[in-house]
Amino acid sequence: MSEDVATLLVSCPDRKGLVASLAQVLYGHGANILDSDQHSDPIASMFFQRLRFDLSSLTTDRTSLENGIREVGERFGMDWKLSYGNRVRRIAIFASKQEHCLYDLLLRHRAGELACEIAMVISNHPDAGPIAAHFGIPFHHLPVTAETKDHAEAAAIELTSSLDLIVLARYMQILSPAFVARFPSRIINIHHSFLPAFVGVNPYKQAYEKGVKLIGATSHYVTADLDQGPIIEQAVIRSTHRDLVEDLVRKGRDLEKQVLAHAVRCHLEDRILVYAGKTVVFD
Amino acid sequence: MSEDVATLLVSCPDRKGLVASLAQVLYGHGANILDSDQHSDPIASMFFQRLRFDLSSLTTDRTSLENGIREVGERFGMDWKLSYGNRVRRIAIFASKQEHCLYDLLLRHRAGELACEIAMVISNHPDAGPIAAHFGIPFHHLPVTAETKDHAEAAAIELTSSLDLIVLARYMQILSPAFVARFPSRIINIHHSFLPAFVGVNPYKQAYEKGVKLIGATSHYVTADLDQGPIIEQAVIRSTHRDLVEDLVRKGRDLEKQVLAHAVRCHLEDRILVYAGKTVVFD
Amino acid sequence: MSEDVATLLVSCPDRKGLVASLAQVLYGHGANILDSDQHSDPIASMFFQRLRFDLSSLTTDRTSLENGIREVGERFGMDWKLSYGNRVRRIAIFASKQEHCLYDLLLRHRAGELACEIAMVISNHPDAGPIAAHFGIPFHHLPVTAETKDHAEAAAIELTSSLDLIVLARYMQILSPAFVARFPSRIINIHHSFLPAFVGVNPYKQAYEKGVKLIGATSHYVTADLDQGPIIEQAVIRSTHRDLVEDLVRKGRDLEKQVLAHAVRCHLEDRILVYAGKTVVFD
Amino acid sequence: MSEDVATLLVSCPDRKGLVASLAQVLYGHGANILDSDQHSDPIASMFFQRLRFDLSSLTTDRTSLENGIREVGERFGMDWKLSYGNRVRRIAIFASKQEHCLYDLLLRHRAGELACEIAMVISNHPDAGPIAAHFGIPFHHLPVTAETKDHAEAAAIELTSSLDLIVLARYMQILSPAFVARFPSRIINIHHSFLPAFVGVNPYKQAYEKGVKLIGATSHYVTADLDQGPIIEQAVIRSTHRDLVEDLVRKGRDLEKQVLAHAVRCHLEDRILVYAGKTVVFD
Repeated sequence: MSEDVATLLVSCPDRKGLVASLAQVLYGHGANILDSDQHSDPIASMFFQRLRFDLSSLTTDRTSLENGIREVGERFGMDWKLSYGNRVRRIAIFASKQEHCLYDLLLRHRAGELACEIAMVISNHPDAGPIAAHFGIPFHHLPVTAETKDHAEAAAIELTSSLDLIVLARYMQILSPAFVARFPSRIINIHHSFLPAFVGVNPYKQAYEKGVKLIGATSHYVTADLDQGPIIEQAVIRSTHRDLVEDLVRKGRDLEKQVLAHAVRCHLEDRILVYAGKTVVFD
Repeated sequence: MSEDVATLLVSCPDRKGLVASLAQVLYGHGANILDSDQHSDPIASMFFQRLRFDLSSLTTDRTSLENGIREVGERFGMDWKLSYGNRVRRIAIFASKQEHCLYDLLLRHRAGELACEIAMVISNHPDAGPIAAHFGIPFHHLPVTAETKDHAEAAAIELTSSLDLIVLARYMQILSPAFVARFPSRIINIHHSFLPAFVGVNPYKQAYEKGVKLIGATSHYVTADLDQGPIIEQAVIRSTHRDLVEDLVRKGRDLEKQVLAHAVRCHLEDRILVYAGKTVVFD
Repeated sequence: MSEDVATLLVSCPDRKGLVASLAQVLYGHGANILDSDQHSDPIASMFFQRLRFDLSSLTTDRTSLENGIREVGERFGMDWKLSYGNRVRRIAIFASKQEHCLYDLLLRHRAGELACEIAMVISNHPDAGPIAAHFGIPFHHLPVTAETKDHAEAAAIELTSSLDLIVLARYMQILSPAFVARFPSRIINIHHSFLPAFVGVNPYKQAYEKGVKLIGATSHYVTADLDQGPIIEQAVIRSTHRDLVEDLVRKGRDLEKQVLAHAVRCHLEDRILVYAGKTVVFD
Repeated sequence: MSEDVATLLVSCPDRKGLVASLAQVLYGHGANILDSDQHSDPIASMFFQRLRFDLSSLTTDRTSLENGIREVGERFGMDWKLSYGNRVRRIAIFASKQEHCLYDLLLRHRAGELACEIAMVISNHPDAGPIAAHFGIPFHHLPVTAETKDHAEAAAIELTSSLDLIVLARYMQILSPAFVARFPSRIINIHHSFLPAFVGVNPYKQAYEKGVKLIGATSHYVTADLDQGPIIEQAVIRSTHRDLVEDLVRKGRDLEKQVLAHAVRCHLEDRILVYAGKTVVFD
């Protein structure tokens, strides 16, 4: 994202004049709207908007623009979040033994698909170390056993305290509620089923036993309830009677990579708003 | 299907010599194999096969061919079913107020996609009557209320007793266990969700409230357990935060039509075997 | 669409202040924006927007609102089109022997998916007559032979002169350039291939001979160049070596129905803008 | 693939007794059929079959089994190919600057998805060197300029002469007809369009200019005609008016990886037969 571009995410009760007021305040400061997406939820009477605008032609400065937005925000009771393109998000990837999602994120980052700095890779297994090294990313090995669990989490909290986003790339440990509470709507997980079907362990085995004709993957924000957080993205692929559990695992890897990467990309581009346990994704 | 073609469906414990024995018996009687599909389930140690063959060059007759197959079947402990192309299956379509699946099946039948005779349309609402009439299909109106339920089912049983297949085309009444027991693996239902997610009533409303990013439809054989029968086919379509329940209903109609029609077509072409609560579909 | 709702479609060279000016003029007249979608094409330096707004709270009247929009339009060099929800579009469906797209549109219309009046069905074959009658739609049989072609087209022009949209639902005759010129971006065709592959006749046969692993369908606006008009929607389905041409035809019918209906629906809801031989579809 | 498993691929004019004769010869030698897939092309009157069988229970030996197959093959005029599970295929991956397909194949190989030895990576750019090294694969840098083209190809021919398969993983050089002739149906390429649409250079730019609503990727065997070889696999993904060429490139990478890997996997598992410029893929 260009340095001179900013993104504004807004949610508030739906009322007349919202769109005009926001457009007016941006125009009044010389900010040129590049992109706008909005959504009105008629059931919840809620309004959501994403505005991306160019700051290079600003006739005032960022502080007075922010004051203008704040004034409108207070008038309409808005939750709003303004992100500047020149502030690079810093993220951590948590992985376990499975390497496909980790590699995928690192490769997409190198290809320029993910606008962030990958500050570190954290794993409870040493295997991810050489992978992180290959991409020049700092690696932290935090083994998790019954005895070390508390220590590992304390170390993880310290390492990630200043980060913007945690990505669980098939990380097989469950984070404590305390950890999760530190990153509201800022931890993204990939679950290898079409949620809400097949929560919990071994979803591919569950899918095999049920005999479904499609398998899925779901990326979601992590909340205190396991596999219950707001869904960001889902995809499926056909399966048949010929597929054993290991075939579902193989087919599912492609899904998991895409569904997780899509969610991370949307989050980094400020495309996601959370409301009532669901997401609005402006993609 | 040509009159001179037969289809053999086989399932049995997996053993050596199965394939050769079946191929040999057919060849020995002059039956020419047109198509063969087989599946070995290494977990259950079960073998499944579908053979379609041409009878026009038979050097013996159908009775002695059947005796030959029976002999192989007994040797290997096979469940087998032989269908001749000149016997037309007779089916009933059950519908309620929603007309899309009913129209879809009637149109596909007229276009030659479904090899059967549609013997009747049965509905608890009168609305389906003119639709059936437009296609020249007999119609039976069997209203279902608390008082008439037993009578309606008795009438339905009598009407359908000689039929090969019952298709529930968004039929909103639950069939009694006794009715279901008369048609083992011969009643096909369409459920408007991606099972096992969202069983029961109002699956689109459940999907809306969960905020899923894909909605689905599932066709399955009906068993005594609601929405739990062996899955035949599934499909999904994208949904977004913009979709209200009525949008999911609209999008879902296309899925329901295709997923139900595919199941009916596969059943009529003897492509489905049921085993352990799941299906083998040779499509 | 509610009677009190209007839709504004805008395209113009991209300039600062566009979004704010339009939002301002609507707000100034008491029109409440329900929905807004916009697109900036950085290559062509063009701006496109669709605004849907509620007129029930208008503080002035429609004429002065239109004057306000006209003034902004002139200032920015906009092409704009304002549609009121209470004006029902009137369309004609042209069909030939194949009935699936015709039935599909009539059924979707009856289910409330297409916000329009189907004023007539026109066909060069008599077969569509009973279908139109079943849905209570006027039918015109205009046979097309070498001798009658000019007469048939003259009759079609007269019948359709006041209509808003022509839908070619697998109509197998080529419209003359003169006819096409009367309906710029207001004739929608379905072509049974994934354009630009397989233009012209028998695309399923072409697909069969090429051995493609997916077949497609494309809906597009009709221009004077055969199968070259702006593409509105496309979809594909898997094909395999087992599919003969007739299987592709069968599979393709489902695609054709959905892809055509989606285009018609988007057109009727003022979701499509045409620019540089391509479409912007706000769906 | 287990060492004791063999795969037989057969194609020949369709005749009675084919299936029984092959089943009989395998059974007669004690080979147990694990999997069988067959296809009769009624237009070309051709028969195709893939048989996978277990050799561990062979009552004779491989030589006499081969003699038995040869005898049947001669009787029916078969092209046949027998592959033993214990012979590991050796392949070369050719790459240029784009790394996504190269990484993808190397990662899938490490995950056990591709049953082969990757004998070498060859590239006209040095960038692929560290990637090959990371996976422990020998790397050959063969720069291609007007002057070095002949030399590079001679070197490539020498390096690959004993290999079973060449995979062009977004290799941007055109192989000479002489090179191609050495590997009939043994060079797999990925083309980044939905062939036959957009042959040649810059297919994503062509797709952008045409305004298609889906973009595709196609894997195919390489023949002397550019982008015209038998298609093995295709896939598509949605594109919209918002996608610039670079977005199509990004979206397309996921397609290219999957479509190429699927083709390579099918080839290595002897699932592909080529006939009349098309493929039969038993997947």
